Amino acid sequence: MKLYERLLEELSVRIEQGYYPVGSKMPSIRALSKERDVSISTVQEAYQRLEERGLVEVRPKSGYYVQGRSIAPTLPDVSRPAQRPLEVSHWEQVYHLLNTEKGEGHLSLGTAMPDISSPTLKLLKKSLVDAAKRADDSFINYCDIRGSEKLRRQIARLALDSGCNLHPDEIIITSGCQEALVCSLRATTNPGDVVATDSPSFYGSTQAIKALGLKALEIPTHPETGISLEALELALDQWPIKAIQVTPTCNNPLGYTMPEERRKALLRLAQQFDVPIIEDDIYGDLFYKSPRPRTIKSFDDEGRVLLCSSFSKTLAYGLRLGWVAPGQCTERVLHKKFVSTVSNPPIQQAAVAEFIAQGGYERHMRIMRAQYQQARDLMIDLVERNFPEGTRISYPGGGYLLWVELPVEVDTIKLNKALERHNISIAPGVIFSASGKYRNCMRLSFAKKPDAAVKQAIKLMAAQIQSLLSEA
Amino acid sequence: MKLYERLLEELSVRIEQGYYPVGSKMPSIRALSKERDVSISTVQEAYQRLEERGLVEVRPKSGYYVQGRSIAPTLPDVSRPAQRPLEVSHWEQVYHLLNTEKGEGHLSLGTAMPDISSPTLKLLKKSLVDAAKRADDSFINYCDIRGSEKLRRQIARLALDSGCNLHPDEIIITSGCQEALVCSLRATTNPGDVVATDSPSFYGSTQAIKALGLKALEIPTHPETGISLEALELALDQWPIKAIQVTPTCNNPLGYTMPEERRKALLRLAQQFDVPIIEDDIYGDLFYKSPRPRTIKSFDDEGRVLLCSSFSKTLAYGLRLGWVAPGQCTERVLHKKFVSTVSNPPIQQAAVAEFIAQGGYERHMRIMRAQYQQARDLMIDLVERNFPEGTRISYPGGGYLLWVELPVEVDTIKLNKALERHNISIAPGVIFSASGKYRNCMRLSFAKKPDAAVKQAIKLMAAQIQSLLSEA
Ligand SMILES: Cc1ncc(COP(=O)(O)O)c(C=O)c1O
Ligand SMILES: Cc1ncc(COP(=O)(O)O)c(C=O)c1O
Repeated sequence: MKLYERLLEELSVRIEQGYYPVGSKMPSIRALSKERDVSISTVQEAYQRLEERGLVEVRPKSGYYVQGRSIAPTLPDVSRPAQRPLEVSHWEQVYHLLNTEKGEGHLSLGTAMPDISSPTLKLLKKSLVDAAKRADDSFINYCDIRGSEKLRRQIARLALDSGCNLHPDEIIITSGCQEALVCSLRATTNPGDVVATDSPSFYGSTQAIKALGLKALEIPTHPETGISLEALELALDQWPIKAIQVTPTCNNPLGYTMPEERRKALLRLAQQFDVPIIEDDIYGDLFYKSPRPRTIKSFDDEGRVLLCSSFSKTLAYGLRLGWVAPGQCTERVLHKKFVSTVSNPPIQQAAVAEFIAQGGYERHMRIMRAQYQQARDLMIDLVERNFPEGTRISYPGGGYLLWVELPVEVDTIKLNKALERHNISIAPGVIFSASGKYRNCMRLSFAKKPDAAVKQAIKLMAAQIQSLLSEA
Repeated sequence: MKLYERLLEELSVRIEQGYYPVGSKMPSIRALSKERDVSISTVQEAYQRLEERGLVEVRPKSGYYVQGRSIAPTLPDVSRPAQRPLEVSHWEQVYHLLNTEKGEGHLSLGTAMPDISSPTLKLLKKSLVDAAKRADDSFINYCDIRGSEKLRRQIARLALDSGCNLHPDEIIITSGCQEALVCSLRATTNPGDVVATDSPSFYGSTQAIKALGLKALEIPTHPETGISLEALELALDQWPIKAIQVTPTCNNPLGYTMPEERRKALLRLAQQFDVPIIEDDIYGDLFYKSPRPRTIKSFDDEGRVLLCSSFSKTLAYGLRLGWVAPGQCTERVLHKKFVSTVSNPPIQQAAVAEFIAQGGYERHMRIMRAQYQQARDLMIDLVERNFPEGTRISYPGGGYLLWVELPVEVDTIKLNKALERHNISIAPGVIFSASGKYRNCMRLSFAKKPDAAVKQAIKLMAAQIQSLLSEA
């Protein structure tokens, strides 16, 4: 191995492992030559190859910079779900995903939990302990159906970043985004009604549709621009749709973010057919670029949009703290919230309010967005390099979820089964559909930065996929 | 005032204020005579009068003991609710009760929150802080739909006291008893179905019946023995009842505890008509006498009973921690729980599990039962002495809720309105009925020991009732 080759490999690995983060400046040629005790031309040679590999870029008069991905991978096709309202199924698969008895060293690439190891969460941990210490608060002896006023004020302040002007009294605190979604569905529909959803779609909301005795009408969805407005309009014409449920920003599982013009057009469509929109913004603050996209709610001046979110994906899952701004439906959602759980425990509310008030939330989001963006590029790279030809991959603009479409012969439930032996799990595609579509798809999380273990897991997965392919 | 009279008054006040608790031994005659520097006969005279007043009793060869109430007050009649399934209303009154903006010094005699000032809760406070400090636990990054195994094991252990042999896996942790009830209702009924309930009945479950599109069939209920089995049997014959929802132990609001024979008979009736029973045991551990009554669930060997409870009434409302043992319906309730809120925050679960494991729960319950029993007697006394003729009062065998039936001319919503000015609130009777019954009734809490402020409030209330009566 030549000197420059050795240096090239070493630098590649360091970039891949995030030692040099995306966007950061690489050491200067002079500095590196001195540090490694090699000639200037050796370093030049190595940098040139790095540039050819697309790992760094030259900025004139400044130096070499670690390059983010600039081109999207081969994206999945527009989805083609069943074009009629259906009962939701596949609860067993959902339960399996969430409740796999995770043995020592189990690697769950299927669940969508944030990385909670960042030091920027220390302040939140402290706020939790402080809140627990104010025992009278934590034992609280009155009932606060709407939730802590202090927290609602902070949420209203954060909502300004997405163009939303909310009064704290328009916000209701919930037990996670799940309760926000289910109370919103309950407030806008009756059993037997039809709800239009993007597709693939978060299993929590499709399972809610099932539990409430509703029917899901899955609308074809584009992997870059989201729910098809053309298909939705046809559906609104044809079926008595009572609510439209979408996740337009950093969609789970597809990763797309709907362009602003399409958001406005979706709202117009909802107005035209007089249907409420349930907007799930749970990953909104994890959009990599700044400023984050405006919510559909921010364009809504008649209270048609019920905006749902939570801190499960941005801070920590175990807080079980979410919220909903239900617009016109506020009083009805309030009744649903009372009936569902009465009110939320005060400790987590106090801690998160304090954390936001002290600027901790925004600081943490800045760090996490950069980390997740870098992890995305590493993960896409890994999948592209290892998975068989014909694999299509989403190109998320935020969050930490990758949607992978495998050759049609591959059944990801079987794949998941085969991976069990290796203590690895993924989220099989079928749970994201009411109609059992997406058998050859899966969702992978890259919240945990792709390290050696993840790399090995992806390679293992690739091998299993190959063997499923050759069986077929 | 004679010497013995002075001593008599002093001792009466001390007994009334709980300085000498119910059941405790009074100082011996000799000791008191020495301490007060009065003659033996003076003390004897005072004790004799105390005995006449029913405040103490003699136990031969032992001495004088503080006496609990031995005779029930004039009880309300058997309830006579509407005999057909009805839509539930009165949400506004419920919301008003729970969310009164409580100004400085507001005295809420309407809400049913436990006293959280007992030193026996210190250990729980410590456990909460400890749990918050184990930050990785409190941020928990996996999903535990059933809830903490440690807590479920402790709950199973406590359930032995009510004759129940539960495996931890038969238990699902919920966000309060409310979520346990609503998931149980959802698992056993479909919209439009009829649910039989005791009457008056807890507004949380009747509001849930409303929100789920069910109809409530209120069954006449006896203030000492609970739901009328005769009326229930007739109703089961006549209507397609899909679930029976009862609170047989320390009933809210009526206070009765169903005799064991009637529990068994209720279960037989449910078997005969093949209907599930949703048993709310939230006040069960607050039954004053030991051992506490067996749950209906404890007689059930076919998984017909869904047993619901929580720590909101025994420990602290703000924990928002409950549980359900759904028998045959376990898998269905699990799905409802997932859809409703996915899972519970880990901090409170860990803290309560630790508190129970260390014996803190049982210690706390012992203290609170004695305190509440004493408070009951004081409260009944106060109401009996001050309220107008024709008032009927419940005689709860546990918990801290009193049901007061006023002369029919009195509207307790009006009374509540009039009390607002004085910064006092009660729970008006109408919220405990689907059919707007119980206009002349109210629920009073004696969780807070009746002190000077409560006494004044009761007197004020009596005056307002008088003026409502003279208006009528
Ligand atoms: C799109 C989406 N909505 C809602 C939820 C539920 O969020 P929470 O954990 O706050 O209830 C999730 C998380 O799985 C999600 O991905
Ligand atoms: C009989 C009864 N069941 C259930 C509940 C609700 O309990 P939790 O606060 O645990 O949801 C209450 C409390 O108001 C109650 O009195």
